[in-house]
Amino acid sequence: MPHSAFPPLQNDTFLRACLRQATDHTPVWLMRQAGRYLPEYRQTREKAGSFMGLATNKDFATEVTLQPLDRYPLDAAILFSDILTVPDAMGLGLSFAMGEGPKFEKVVRDEAAVAALAVPDMNKLRYVFDAVTSIRRALNGRVPLIGFSGSPWTLACYMVEGAGSDDYRWVKSLMYSRPDLMHRLLAINADSVALYLNTQIDAGAQAVMIFDSWGGVLADGAFQQFSLQYTARVLSQLKKSADGATIPRLVFTKGGGMWLDDMNTLDCEVLGLDWTQNLGRARALVGGEVGGPGKALQGNIDPNVLFAPPQVIEQEVIKVLESFGPPHTDPLKTGPTHVFNLGHGIHQLTPPEHVSALVSAVHQHSRKMRTTARAV
Amino acid sequence: MPHSAFPPLQNDTFLRACLRQATDHTPVWLMRQAGRYLPEYRQTREKAGSFMGLATNKDFATEVTLQPLDRYPLDAAILFSDILTVPDAMGLGLSFAMGEGPKFEKVVRDEAAVAALAVPDMNKLRYVFDAVTSIRRALNGRVPLIGFSGSPWTLACYMVEGAGSDDYRWVKSLMYSRPDLMHRLLAINADSVALYLNTQIDAGAQAVMIFDSWGGVLADGAFQQFSLQYTARVLSQLKKSADGATIPRLVFTKGGGMWLDDMNTLDCEVLGLDWTQNLGRARALVGGEVGGPGKALQGNIDPNVLFAPPQVIEQEVIKVLESFGPPHTDPLKTGPTHVFNLGHGIHQLTPPEHVSALVSAVHQHSRKMRTTARAV
Repeated sequence: MPHSAFPPLQNDTFLRACLRQATDHTPVWLMRQAGRYLPEYRQTREKAGSFMGLATNKDFATEVTLQPLDRYPLDAAILFSDILTVPDAMGLGLSFAMGEGPKFEKVVRDEAAVAALAVPDMNKLRYVFDAVTSIRRALNGRVPLIGFSGSPWTLACYMVEGAGSDDYRWVKSLMYSRPDLMHRLLAINADSVALYLNTQIDAGAQAVMIFDSWGGVLADGAFQQFSLQYTARVLSQLKKSADGATIPRLVFTKGGGMWLDDMNTLDCEVLGLDWTQNLGRARALVGGEVGGPGKALQGNIDPNVLFAPPQVIEQEVIKVLESFGPPHTDPLKTGPTHVFNLGHGIHQLTPPEHVSALVSAVHQHSRKMRTTARAV
Repeated sequence: MPHSAFPPLQNDTFLRACLRQATDHTPVWLMRQAGRYLPEYRQTREKAGSFMGLATNKDFATEVTLQPLDRYPLDAAILFSDILTVPDAMGLGLSFAMGEGPKFEKVVRDEAAVAALAVPDMNKLRYVFDAVTSIRRALNGRVPLIGFSGSPWTLACYMVEGAGSDDYRWVKSLMYSRPDLMHRLLAINADSVALYLNTQIDAGAQAVMIFDSWGGVLADGAFQQFSLQYTARVLSQLKKSADGATIPRLVFTKGGGMWLDDMNTLDCEVLGLDWTQNLGRARALVGGEVGGPGKALQGNIDPNVLFAPPQVIEQEVIKVLESFGPPHTDPLKTGPTHVFNLGHGIHQLTPPEHVSALVSAVHQHSRKMRTTARAV
């Protein structure tokens, strides 16, 4: 569907910040902002019967994607889905047992299992693209819609382990013992993810994010070879624009702060950071100067801050904004910019009213920082 | 017990490397080297009835501490014990349910619980010090004995959560909501840990290590304030020598690679690193030059490498040794040195014969590196 067929965008703060353009305030959205901490989400999920019941029905997916936007003045929406849809479409059989994490019926641990893998037919993921189009329509131009996928390595972790893991023993054993098989698996994942994200863009996604949730469990050296290389392979295949609009590409490696220099080589617009990173240091390393190239930065408050009282949340938001420092304000040039986010998904027990405190603190204080920056 | 009353040390490679003195090979020991992957350990544990049955009986503790040394030419022994002995001695009631992790009967989550805490009577930890003396005697000078403790922050995590945790919600909620209580708790922990380690030194420990296993879950800023500061408080109270022998102090923060610069300010001899760190980069940051000050580095192979075939283990060992680069060989000066270790505890399913491959690869290749370095 051509992007011009959707209603025009009213709040482009997020997209501008992704492209390192000056904005009036620091845009904010939250990883897993549509989720279990919201009572209205839990109600919809009950109607849907299960997590996959939610994700595979475009009306439910649209409903829950918009719920946080009705509560909070967030600057972006993100597709409600799961990172494991792609391996599911490869035929591994995804299920979510109540109260447990995701589980695959089949695991990929040997030559035969790898040989049986292929880039899945995108028709099996039609429900995702239908949800993207439905959400984009329902947003009616309020804020941009972010599409997403797991990274090739992160998908491989689940495909080899068969579920979440504490030690990544199976996937790392395969990687160290049979790197040839791991490379074959990762190449298939990368091409699948690229096609998946491009189809999300065709369906209406205005930015795309790659979640390398488990890149940070790799050893130095292995990360570059088995995670970063395949994220780069995805990025090299992604559409850079749709119907004239630039589509920013965001990459988030949880626990990847050690490798910021390496990630700076990625052909993407935004790097996401977890809370262990100092944003000022990251800005100095990869944020660039006004008028020069660089990456926008996204992050990085600890989601556990949201369990503290609102006045503490406000202080901690200010610390994060100040650690990045004043964003540039030159309307004619690109320069260092910050997209506020958590350093990881929001916790399901978060009090919803605490999220209001966070969002309004980001907006208020980041406006103040710009006024001060201009006055200086 | 005066250290001179024990038999003289035959292999001081580990201690020399900790003090940045030149050695003929890179010393190696493994975190959790006495453990469940060894069939002889499982036998002794069965005799003892439980984990704490092992740890609280000096004969059993001595037996299992020496088991890996009988199998492998390791360059150090480490006291067999648990990091949670100190909060247990504070009266929190430690237990290990079969197949589960540690659990405390009482949790520390409010003002009253923090007010009830105090530095424990070291007599309650007599079993640890008795084990230290017994092990040191049984070692008969083969290799040095390392004593250890959890860091103040890591102990606090268990004391507040009551058990292991995925999200550290309770401890971080307390930290963000009531930093005053958290600081009080951490000060008590720091003074307890210092006394505990000093008493281990009195009992015969020849080096001491602080495990900050959970420092890496903290946000930048919070780490410095709530973990590093209290590790420094422990270090400031530690004995630097016993009976004329220098006692090296090692600090290991899992996931703390972002903060190497901060950790460089610690008054300790060795910094431990997990596998996400590049040893060459770490050496450049904190390892120092020949004749100048600096920290020795310990680490950092991924324990999952031990699931690969022996020839892969050998290759990966060489990669880690080469990433550090040639250690200095000047017999008259201190300079950059490396103590080989895993980046985390050994996995319980590790094939014991794979450990032989690792240890011999470290010894062989590190000797070769020194010959080449001298030849150049």
